[in-house]
Order: sequence, then structure tokens, then C-alpha cells
Amino acid sequence: MRNHRILLRRVPSGLPTPEDFDSDEVDVPAPADGQFLSRTIWLSLDPYYRNIMKGSQFYAERLTPGDPMCGETVAQVVESRHPGFAGGDYVVVRNGWQDYGVSDGVGVRKLDPSAAPLSTALGVLGMPGLTGYAGLVYLGEPRPGQTVVVSAATGPVGSTAGQVARLVGARPVGIAGSPEKCRYAVEELGYSACANYRDGNLREQLEAMCPDGIDVYFDNVGGDTLGAVLANLARDARVVLCGMIEAYSMDQPPPGPFLGPVVAARATLKGLVVYDWLHKQAEQQRVVAAWIRDGVFRYREDVTEGLQGAPGAFCRLMQGRNFGKALVRVAPEQRA
Amino acid sequence: MRNHRILLRRVPSGLPTPEDFDSDEVDVPAPADGQFLSRTIWLSLDPYYRNIMKGSQFYAERLTPGDPMCGETVAQVVESRHPGFAGGDYVVVRNGWQDYGVSDGVGVRKLDPSAAPLSTALGVLGMPGLTGYAGLVYLGEPRPGQTVVVSAATGPVGSTAGQVARLVGARPVGIAGSPEKCRYAVEELGYSACANYRDGNLREQLEAMCPDGIDVYFDNVGGDTLGAVLANLARDARVVLCGMIEAYSMDQPPPGPFLGPVVAARATLKGLVVYDWLHKQAEQQRVVAAWIRDGVFRYREDVTEGLQGAPGAFCRLMQGRNFGKALVRVAPEQRA
Repeated sequence: MRNHRILLRRVPSGLPTPEDFDSDEVDVPAPADGQFLSRTIWLSLDPYYRNIMKGSQFYAERLTPGDPMCGETVAQVVESRHPGFAGGDYVVVRNGWQDYGVSDGVGVRKLDPSAAPLSTALGVLGMPGLTGYAGLVYLGEPRPGQTVVVSAATGPVGSTAGQVARLVGARPVGIAGSPEKCRYAVEELGYSACANYRDGNLREQLEAMCPDGIDVYFDNVGGDTLGAVLANLARDARVVLCGMIEAYSMDQPPPGPFLGPVVAARATLKGLVVYDWLHKQAEQQRVVAAWIRDGVFRYREDVTEGLQGAPGAFCRLMQGRNFGKALVRVAPEQRA
Repeated sequence: MRNHRILLRRVPSGLPTPEDFDSDEVDVPAPADGQFLSRTIWLSLDPYYRNIMKGSQFYAERLTPGDPMCGETVAQVVESRHPGFAGGDYVVVRNGWQDYGVSDGVGVRKLDPSAAPLSTALGVLGMPGLTGYAGLVYLGEPRPGQTVVVSAATGPVGSTAGQVARLVGARPVGIAGSPEKCRYAVEELGYSACANYRDGNLREQLEAMCPDGIDVYFDNVGGDTLGAVLANLARDARVVLCGMIEAYSMDQPPPGPFLGPVVAARATLKGLVVYDWLHKQAEQQRVVAAWIRDGVFRYREDVTEGLQGAPGAFCRLMQGRNFGKALVRVAPEQRA
């Protein structure tokens, strides 16, 4: 049995390209005592991998060229020498970009395959969903009638934040990067309006869409987009700083926006790291799963077939050209 | 009786120069019913006047060239047609840069001349003192043992924030612009250390002075100084954004610092406007006056003699070349 892997060939300069990756095939590793082997089914693609490549993700080890790419996956246990896991179990585990992985079980979450589609454990019912939910509810503190702006509005984090805003009675306004995404944001996700940042004049677009100012901003991108929002803050606004995707592909951190409007608005900016909110994961899954069952909460997946497509899909993600949660189907859910 | 006035001649380009001001002499105005006339004793010079000149101070009317310069003053009532004020009363009133002013009493605070030196009503026991006190106590929330960094550390706002930090058991570290100011900060104001930002490498200076990271930052200047602090934040840090003096003399708002470190630290940035905290003014005066009487709280004034010196003194202030609360003694406290 062979293990197909995608490796980091070199740290990208700027936006990643498929040439920054390599692949190989090695023997499938054998689990030691206290470990289990699992076969990868779904691979999650997330912008923060770009930070890990350059060593600037503060809660993860830097990758070295030649290493297999890191990544969160849904997998099925093949062989277990760990008392907590048995063959056939479905798990969320960091197998990375490869067909098989060995784990000691730390940080691994078991999945009930009958509760929800397995892929949702990497998106709407996984880390991205928890990020959007906990960040908006506990840091953004939206109130009914308030205006909540969300950037990367149709992605797995943003679409959760935007729909939570709507379902708690606030008025969500999205920011996205194409007319199709903006239409989907309004028609499917229930945003009241959605600005296309590629149209320019984002500050004026938001001013028109948020005539009473922005009470909450859930920021996924940083940069000029953040500056355009700050210029439209309402008094006592809250800004949730989640991730600055615009900066991930830059060697030097870019300057940020002028913060004078934060003073004028008496606004509060708060940094969000999802790993601080794992104690809310059960709540998030219960609440969001119920909304999905009730048909009031939608999610969208952008699926690439086969591990060999992962580099290209990751590059599209970093250009904002995915549409929905970026996933790679590495293998079928049921073993052939 | 003639009224000597300093006028705005033109909106400065960049840092103000004395040529941006003019002066004239007019008749002393007569108070109407419901007004009083007062003679100016002390004129306060504050960086935010520069914002009013260019119309970017959000809570004040823009000045038009030819207008008398605006400003907070301590004055004595000369003639009153207002039921709340009598001849001889000492008041804090916005007479601006002139010998005499007329007021309808709105926002005017009466002073007890025996309670504290009159000039302190414009500094340590006035708006700057309230800014440093309320901003640090209620937004910064310093705790004993925590590290509190204060920029413009020897000015009236910063020296209040720094000394409050010390008196609540935290460890204050200052940022100032000369060896003399840094020495004064440590030896007189009780800062544990003080970095001279003109020496460069502020980020490294702060790293050495704050080995456990910065728990609270009281920001008076913005810009690169703020960036150097953000790079040294401790987990769950609070940053009080008070005023961005570096930007006041710029026509276009400059970029701000990269906010990635705010996410990593899970920090909170909060905008401070002193006029939201007037309900704490009595508390601030009671607490700080007691500390001054006990000899544990110091203040320093930078006094210019005569109204004609106000333009030069204001220009020095905007270059950070004052040392202590910038005041102009317009007339003796007692009438000759």
C-alpha cells in the first residue's frame, strides 16, 4: 500500500503557485503503540496554511521545504493501536495533504457519520463554523436591528457570521469579490446587501448600504477593506479581527489602516483566535445544526476531486477565486 | 479697554509655523443678557487645536482663516449679565487666544482658587488629567503587577496615565522624545523605565524593557510608535487609543500599523474620547488632588509668558518640544 503525498517544494514568494508544490509516493506508515493509522477522505484548504509556510502562524510549526503539506482532514481509521480509536471510526485529524496519516489521538475529534455530512466537520460544523459563530456572538455581540458587515462573506467563516447575524435579528451586509458571490450572499445567505470590493469605492458602497453606520464588523481580510469599514463605523462599534488574508502572501506585513476613526467612533477592535473558543464548539454545533435542519442556514462547498488537485485549489483560494468552503475529496467516504 | 487677539491666518501645511498666525486688537466685547465677560489668565495649548484648524476634529467646528484661535482658558469674570456667574468668579471657559471673551455659561466650570493652583484646571485637574485617568482606569484596566506602556509619557495626559498605573500597583514604562524627558519620567514620575523614540529601534527597546510583554498601552501618538508597541503585546492586552498626534499635522491620514499582532495577542483596542467621561471628573479630581497632597503624584508645566508667545509655543508643542503641560500666562491671576 502506497501513500501519495503533496510536499512543500519552496516557500512561495507572494501568492502561491502550483510550482511551489511537489509530490511523491512512499510506503504507508505503520502505527506504533498508542497511535492509529487513518485514510484521508476530505482535506480542508484554509488560508492560514500560507502563514505556516512562511513561519508566521504563531500557533503552528513552520514547514520546511520537503515536508508534506499540513492540513485538517476527515479520515477513517484503518488500523488502531490506540485504546480510544477503532478501525472504521471517522475522525477529524491533521493528516495533511496525503492519503494516509498516523496520529497519537491528541486533538482528534470523532464524528458520527449519520449526524451530518462528513465534509461539514471541516466547514460549517468545524473550525471555520466555530470561528464565525463564536467570533460574531461573543466578540461582535450583535444586537437586533444593528448593522453587521462581514468580509469574505460567502466563505465558510464569513457565511456563518453573516447568517448568525441575520438569525439573531441584526442586518448583515456582506463584502465579496464577484457579482456571483454577491448575488449568492443576498439570495441564498440572506444578507441585506453585498458590496463587491473589486468594483472599487468600497468606502462609498458601504456608506450607501449602511446609512446608520456599521455596528459590528467581522474582518477576515484586513488591509484596505478594513480601512473602508472603519470610515463607516457607528458609535461604540465592535470590530472582530479574525484573519488578515490579504497579508498572508506578503513577505513583509503591510501597513494597516489609519485608526483615527476608531477613536471618533469609540470603537473596540478585538483579536480572535478560534482555539480560545473550543469550549463553545458543542454549543455551535447544536445551534447551527438545528438551523440547517430548519432550512434557515445554508452552506456551500467548493470541491476539488483528487489530491493532485490540491495545489491548484489552494492557489485559487489564496486569490479569493474559490466559492464556498474549499475542500479536496481525497478518497470516497466508503471504502471500495 | 482693548482686546488683543491671535487669529488663524491660514491653515498650516504640515507642522504649524508662527507665520500661520496673525494678531489684531479690537474693542472688548460687551456681554448681552445671559452672558458674562471674563479676562483670560491662563491659556491651554493642546495638540487637538491642529485638527480643528483643518476641520478634522469631529466634535468641534472648523476654524476659518481670520477667526480668533480657539482654546480652553482659565479666566476671571469681569462683568456678568448671567445669573450663575458674578464678577470676580474664576472659571474654566473657552475664551480662545485673546485677552477677553464672552460666554453664555454653557460648559463653563467654576473654580475654587483656594483648592489648587488655577493653572491645574487646564492640566492635571482638567481635561488632560481626566483623559489620562479615565482612559487608563476604565479602558486600560491595569492590574497590579502588569506592565503599562504610555507614550508622550511626560505630557499632561501621559504623566497622569503613567502615575495612575504606578499608584494602582502596575509597572509603568514610558515613551518620550529626549534623554531629559526620559530621566524626568523615571526619577520624578516613577516610571520603571522610559524609551526615547528618537533613538530608533523602539520595538527592541520596548522588548528589553517589557520582558513579559505589554499588558496595557495608553497611546497618545499613533503611527510607528503604536506599531512598535503592538509587536510586544502580552496575551489579552488592552490598547487605549487616545489621540494620534503624529497625524494631526498631516493633510492625508497616514497608514496605521499592521494589526496581525492584535489577533495573535487576542488584544482589544478601544477608542477614547474624554467628553464621554465627564461623569468621572469629580472622582478624578478627588483622587488625584489627594495624591498630589500626599506627595506621590507630580505634574510639570511649560509656561510661556504673554499671549504674543502663544503661536511659537504651540508650534513647539506640535514638534514634541514642550516639556510638561503647555500653558500661556496671558495675564496675572490677581488684577493689578
